[in-house]
Amino acid sequence: MDHARRIYSEYNAWLQPKSSLEPKALRIRAGFDLDFIHQECRLGLIRLWGEIQECDEYTLQLKMNDLEHEEFSLTPLENGFEIAGGSKNALLYGVYRFLNRLATGESMEKIHEHSAPKVDYRIINHWDNMDGHIERGYAGNSFFFHNNKFDYDQERIKNYARMMASIGINGICINNVNVNKVSAGLIAEPLLSDMAELAGLFRPFGIRLLVSVHFDAPMIVGGLTTSDPLDAGVKEFWKVQSAVVYDKIPDFLGYLVKADSEFRGGPEAFGRTQADGANTIAAAVAPFGGLVFWRCFVYNCQQDWRDAQTDRPMAAYKHFQPLDGTFDQNVILQIKNGPVDFQTREPVSPLFSNLKNTREAIEFQIAQEYTGQQIDLFSLAVQWEEILTTEVNKGKQLKSLFGQEIVAVTAVTNTGNNMNWTGNTLAQCNLYAFGRMAWNPELTAKELICEWIRITFETDEHGRQTIEEMLLTSRGIYESYTAPLGIGFMVNPSSHYGPNVDGYEFSNWGTYHRASSDAIGVDRTSKGTGFTLQYPESLQRMYDHIESCPEELLLFFHRVRYDYKMKDGRTLLQYIYDSHFEGAQQAEALLQSWETLENRVPQEAFNSVKARLQLQLLNAREWRDQVNTYFYRKTGIDDEKGRKIYM
Amino acid sequence: MDHARRIYSEYNAWLQPKSSLEPKALRIRAGFDLDFIHQECRLGLIRLWGEIQECDEYTLQLKMNDLEHEEFSLTPLENGFEIAGGSKNALLYGVYRFLNRLATGESMEKIHEHSAPKVDYRIINHWDNMDGHIERGYAGNSFFFHNNKFDYDQERIKNYARMMASIGINGICINNVNVNKVSAGLIAEPLLSDMAELAGLFRPFGIRLLVSVHFDAPMIVGGLTTSDPLDAGVKEFWKVQSAVVYDKIPDFLGYLVKADSEFRGGPEAFGRTQADGANTIAAAVAPFGGLVFWRCFVYNCQQDWRDAQTDRPMAAYKHFQPLDGTFDQNVILQIKNGPVDFQTREPVSPLFSNLKNTREAIEFQIAQEYTGQQIDLFSLAVQWEEILTTEVNKGKQLKSLFGQEIVAVTAVTNTGNNMNWTGNTLAQCNLYAFGRMAWNPELTAKELICEWIRITFETDEHGRQTIEEMLLTSRGIYESYTAPLGIGFMVNPSSHYGPNVDGYEFSNWGTYHRASSDAIGVDRTSKGTGFTLQYPESLQRMYDHIESCPEELLLFFHRVRYDYKMKDGRTLLQYIYDSHFEGAQQAEALLQSWETLENRVPQEAFNSVKARLQLQLLNAREWRDQVNTYFYRKTGIDDEKGRKIYM
Repeated sequence: MDHARRIYSEYNAWLQPKSSLEPKALRIRAGFDLDFIHQECRLGLIRLWGEIQECDEYTLQLKMNDLEHEEFSLTPLENGFEIAGGSKNALLYGVYRFLNRLATGESMEKIHEHSAPKVDYRIINHWDNMDGHIERGYAGNSFFFHNNKFDYDQERIKNYARMMASIGINGICINNVNVNKVSAGLIAEPLLSDMAELAGLFRPFGIRLLVSVHFDAPMIVGGLTTSDPLDAGVKEFWKVQSAVVYDKIPDFLGYLVKADSEFRGGPEAFGRTQADGANTIAAAVAPFGGLVFWRCFVYNCQQDWRDAQTDRPMAAYKHFQPLDGTFDQNVILQIKNGPVDFQTREPVSPLFSNLKNTREAIEFQIAQEYTGQQIDLFSLAVQWEEILTTEVNKGKQLKSLFGQEIVAVTAVTNTGNNMNWTGNTLAQCNLYAFGRMAWNPELTAKELICEWIRITFETDEHGRQTIEEMLLTSRGIYESYTAPLGIGFMVNPSSHYGPNVDGYEFSNWGTYHRASSDAIGVDRTSKGTGFTLQYPESLQRMYDHIESCPEELLLFFHRVRYDYKMKDGRTLLQYIYDSHFEGAQQAEALLQSWETLENRVPQEAFNSVKARLQLQLLNAREWRDQVNTYFYRKTGIDDEKGRKIYM
Repeated sequence: MDHARRIYSEYNAWLQPKSSLEPKALRIRAGFDLDFIHQECRLGLIRLWGEIQECDEYTLQLKMNDLEHEEFSLTPLENGFEIAGGSKNALLYGVYRFLNRLATGESMEKIHEHSAPKVDYRIINHWDNMDGHIERGYAGNSFFFHNNKFDYDQERIKNYARMMASIGINGICINNVNVNKVSAGLIAEPLLSDMAELAGLFRPFGIRLLVSVHFDAPMIVGGLTTSDPLDAGVKEFWKVQSAVVYDKIPDFLGYLVKADSEFRGGPEAFGRTQADGANTIAAAVAPFGGLVFWRCFVYNCQQDWRDAQTDRPMAAYKHFQPLDGTFDQNVILQIKNGPVDFQTREPVSPLFSNLKNTREAIEFQIAQEYTGQQIDLFSLAVQWEEILTTEVNKGKQLKSLFGQEIVAVTAVTNTGNNMNWTGNTLAQCNLYAFGRMAWNPELTAKELICEWIRITFETDEHGRQTIEEMLLTSRGIYESYTAPLGIGFMVNPSSHYGPNVDGYEFSNWGTYHRASSDAIGVDRTSKGTGFTLQYPESLQRMYDHIESCPEELLLFFHRVRYDYKMKDGRTLLQYIYDSHFEGAQQAEALLQSWETLENRVPQEAFNSVKARLQLQLLNAREWRDQVNTYFYRKTGIDDEKGRKIYM
């Protein structure tokens, strides 16, 4: 943190200088062996205040005590303030939390907090390829890799680590789950030594590295002729190679594996189960306390659209539920929040209701692959709150599983080497909210958004309220002008941005809406594909019946006629028209709102967001017109309000 | 030609050894300075017969006489045979024609022929990029370039030149019309010297090279700040640079230019006309007898689908017709056969009816971009015959313009570095037919196909008839299972293979069918976009009226309700269903027919074709099902015959 540069910079993300804050004269005191944390605290205060006036009469005490491993407390004292933690990492979290609360303008005397995370592992997944390109990256290229080598700016890595630690992240997987022949070599020399060096930069911040490994590493890296997880040579390969990894990086967190998925190798190629595959690798890292995160994103991506029996959302449950209880203790099944693939609106994956004896990670996507690509505004916190408060078992919301079956929260990151990390400045809010929510799933989207705004910007009440309103409504706006009512996948194939109503309709990916001249959607009820049968009975009943099915998921679960009457009396078709006309209007209003903030937010943030809101408006109008024209051409039925639908 | 290797090889293309032929003892005599032609004749006979038994009693006389420049004659004599030509090139054409006729099994005594080409320029366009990739190449990579350098096998080039000369080709443009910064440098050192060397390999075969140039070469190659064709510096650049080219390659044929088209630079960027652009470049090559082929493929490729006024097929006429008579004598306007882009079925470009004082080239596409990509069988000769016999002015067919306004026939080639040149062995027939038809547009598809079969294969009557039938019906079969009735562009964007009914429907490319629940097509009549007004009045009337419009072009010219009654009484919708069901059946029959030829054609040809016919069958079924499902979903109307349409 550069003392001299006490002005807003997008590069600081939310750790911004605050010229409005009144510095407090104080002396920092820290116990034995806490120099790094002391230093972080000092740097943080200097960034906020510009300077620290030393004063013996007020003490900021940093200390370790007998709290839990990651638990911290913030306590105002008579003539001072105490930050305490059950470990160095916990203390560091306390320091960052203290700094963030100061940044919001709170006075030190009023900062009381006692906090511990609900889950042990809060993890960022990078989809960085070693050539420097980021899969689904919308903020530039990798800041780890270039040209198939490690190639990074040490200062940037430290800033990144600080930023991540400040929201409680304690694990980072540095490479894409789609492992190629180059990145498969990360677990071996010469790349391993480079990775160990990088791990050293993250270590002081309490962040442990993971690496995505290739299931076929025994062949690619080990030169074996098989990757069969029950083969003795394969088991030996994983053991020996993992010993090499842990020799270099003793606190390495473990491996992430995408197997039997989208053309990746996996145990099923050898007639083995997912558990066979995961357990063989897990056994190799178990002696070192390592973990295996095993993704459940397994489905047939070579489906024939003519096959109406196979229903992609059912795949993960079918593969993994029968194996409940057969995974080793250090295997964590990594399950996407929904049963399809990070769409704007999906139900919660039925696996969360039905894995009782397996450790789970829930995987979110901060990268806005299907949610606007960091061009269109989309506050994911709003979506995540909906997901976390969804009922998964009688009377139990998803978030109640945190610290129970769910031991880890992971997400695909939205960062890249753009100066502001996330392309769209406002997308920083999603990164911030993810870390905070992974720590404490009880936080609401509104709380998280307000926090981030106050920490990030020095603006007036109009500024704060405007940004808050924009972020809180952004998810609904994006949803309204894109694919309606949970239907999903009306995007351009491969780019996943912009409308293409039939784009996936005849593809191999298993994502079909089957719109005809009178109806749209796939019947996923117990009388249809049977997907609802994967839920506990009460949920199954709710989703099965069109009257009790949440309306926003209507087209996820049901095939519905265009003349179906929605709850407010409109037909489905009119609802689609209305939603698209209104959504595009609201996108225009977003731009207009933001334009009132010129000179109320820093110019670079103003520009970064405005340029994107202008693109969003074009995108929203394109969605509006393509979707409305599509349904108009299918039905021949006019908009009741006579608005322009192109022929 | 390898004496020892007297067996069929796909690499020989149609110049195959023929074990069934009875060699005739003879002596070849050739006049002064005809060594190369003598040698070609000898090599040819050896390839056919395996050997030449020398015999003084029968003379094969090769001689020059006072025929026209490219005219030759083949004449049986008392104890010998005379091949005569008005020039060396003409004589060479005579020799090859003689060899080809021998190859069909004709006896020498019966070979009488007197022939001269209808047009002066018969030209092959390569879309080879210098990195080695061929744009729309379906037979491997370039045999000219690799890694942004010239990189070729001299023997292969000679074989290629021989093959092309054997069908009368006299010009070859070696690089893609989409010129990039590398290939822009072909007109300058160091690449120019390499091109001169290549030109030397083609020269003995009577083939002159052309090169595609970048309109912005004055900037890219010359380092100027403008490419404005009326700028003195730009004119000077083209003069000086062309002098450099002709100094190295005195018989260079000229330049091919794609300007103001699909993101290429052009005169319109400087507020100049197409004629300004073409004439500036033409003036630079005129002193050397050089030509400029200027493509008329100019249209707005950034159209908004919501814009129903702009009609892409009208673009070329609008740009070029008003300039008729303003182009220099050595400019040849290169016009695609149809007004859109090499679709399965289009009318003839209205420019052919309306350019009276401009020299023209008609451009065909042998590369099967939209016609099956050398996987699906598509005999282009059949399509070309239809095009050439289309009326373009009162009582005048297109072919009657050959040797009049049309002075050149060009085509994008279907060749690459695959061992058999064209991927699909049967696609050799398209290359063969193109050269022969460019020479003599009176030849019918049936004649050309029979010739090629007889020259290429030694098979029995069943073999010949089967292949003939397959080729003759192939165009109709492909058309029937793909986009119906001239509607065009229902292919996958970018790949241009396989169905995607709405694939271009909301794109920028100006290619829309606007199918709704009750009708499909764009009204291009004089009451619609007015496209038909670009034709002479009698044609306009014919196309304007749905009763007189050729039914196979119904959906090119008209917007038609699905319940419209076709000439045979079926509805349009039922016609679409029937055509797709029958087309897929016929594709299956093609495969079955071919399978009867095992051991009747050489194994390598049998395999090459069979593998592709199997893929074609999958493709045909995919087209059938996607197109039928698409229209069924739009209309809700069942197939009258109750065949399977997927939902």
